[in-house]
Amino acid sequence: MIGVIRVFSTDNKEILNQHGKVITNTSNIPTVSKCIQDQPLGIFNDETEAQAIPKIVELGKELEREGSKVLVISCAADPAIEELRTSVSIPVIGAGSAAALTALSIGKSVGVMGITDNAPAAVENLLGSLLVGYKRPDGVTNTTDLLTPQGKQNGIEAAEHLISLGAEAIVFACTGFSTIGLAAVLREKLTIPIIDAVEAEGLFASYLLKKSVLSVSSQAGFL
Amino acid sequence: MIGVIRVFSTDNKEILNQHGKVITNTSNIPTVSKCIQDQPLGIFNDETEAQAIPKIVELGKELEREGSKVLVISCAADPAIEELRTSVSIPVIGAGSAAALTALSIGKSVGVMGITDNAPAAVENLLGSLLVGYKRPDGVTNTTDLLTPQGKQNGIEAAEHLISLGAEAIVFACTGFSTIGLAAVLREKLTIPIIDAVEAEGLFASYLLKKSVLSVSSQAGFL
Repeated sequence: MIGVIRVFSTDNKEILNQHGKVITNTSNIPTVSKCIQDQPLGIFNDETEAQAIPKIVELGKELEREGSKVLVISCAADPAIEELRTSVSIPVIGAGSAAALTALSIGKSVGVMGITDNAPAAVENLLGSLLVGYKRPDGVTNTTDLLTPQGKQNGIEAAEHLISLGAEAIVFACTGFSTIGLAAVLREKLTIPIIDAVEAEGLFASYLLKKSVLSVSSQAGFL
Repeated sequence: MIGVIRVFSTDNKEILNQHGKVITNTSNIPTVSKCIQDQPLGIFNDETEAQAIPKIVELGKELEREGSKVLVISCAADPAIEELRTSVSIPVIGAGSAAALTALSIGKSVGVMGITDNAPAAVENLLGSLLVGYKRPDGVTNTTDLLTPQGKQNGIEAAEHLISLGAEAIVFACTGFSTIGLAAVLREKLTIPIIDAVEAEGLFASYLLKKSVLSVSSQAGFL
């Protein structure tokens, strides 16, 4: 079981479980999702991040007690990741760092897309000199803005802008892009790798829970 | 199709395809494997690495021409990775960097196991200060040495030594450990994450080839 921490407040079970569903659809591993309380708009500045940190730590501890074997903090800013890692004994994955590390595996120049003014530090610091640009799609401050045909077109144009800056892969620094299926839209239009932060956190979390593949041969294996 | 570059010479199809089988068993994505010529002992010093580089580049170009969409250099030293990345237009993943990046996703102290004197630079440089130790299992210079009950015991003892140094995860810096199923042996005995280099390269390569998960909801997706 993967414990999914949603970094905003909702009573809507479908919205709560959206990221967990993406992870289960790709890995077949069950998830359980919990959200923090009293922050319907989530984290959007230093003050709201400070408020969220102890709540994220408590949720993580609760998910561990209730049987989760890996935790994902499903937000591209990786809020409270260090605090939570020192508070539980199971692995903790952050969406932002997972997406950046996935991009690093191909060693190419990366363009980052998000809905805030700048790329989250969790993403920027890992990408280092491979980061060639950051772009918020025009007119988008909220991923619901991307749900319209014009919004989708703006998403595609943002990716094309990053490609014009030299990006050879795109990383999403906003987990809301998963909810609206932006990766599918871009993969249809573009040939470069599109790295979705929720898929990336699910990739690592599910690997940690998979059993070993049996040895394919007991014959010579010297290399 | 994932193109798997084996960094030694063999006429034995079963041995040639071992890593590809591990990748297909975990991801269900087909692989095609090719090996370099005239290096039955692979790469074991600077001279043999220099000899291998142009051969790896040629194999990669050949695999791309024949339809591979992602390449993996299936050796923990990531030989020729920069040269190959500039020679093909498809993503190139290295086993060593893939394993190290997978370990970084959980942000814990890492112990590295291999069969050479030191951890490969491709692994060491990425892990940075999270690397707490490197260990070659006693008496092992060749993974076939690990196939005996004593060899397995030595593998477990090497991991336990790394844990005593503070390792909270183990990374394999030798792809031969995949062939002999060492991850399964260690996962049975130990509770910390065991990161196998062939599984890790397959994890990234298969992600790049997967289609998007469809949007799970068109409802509000602002976070």
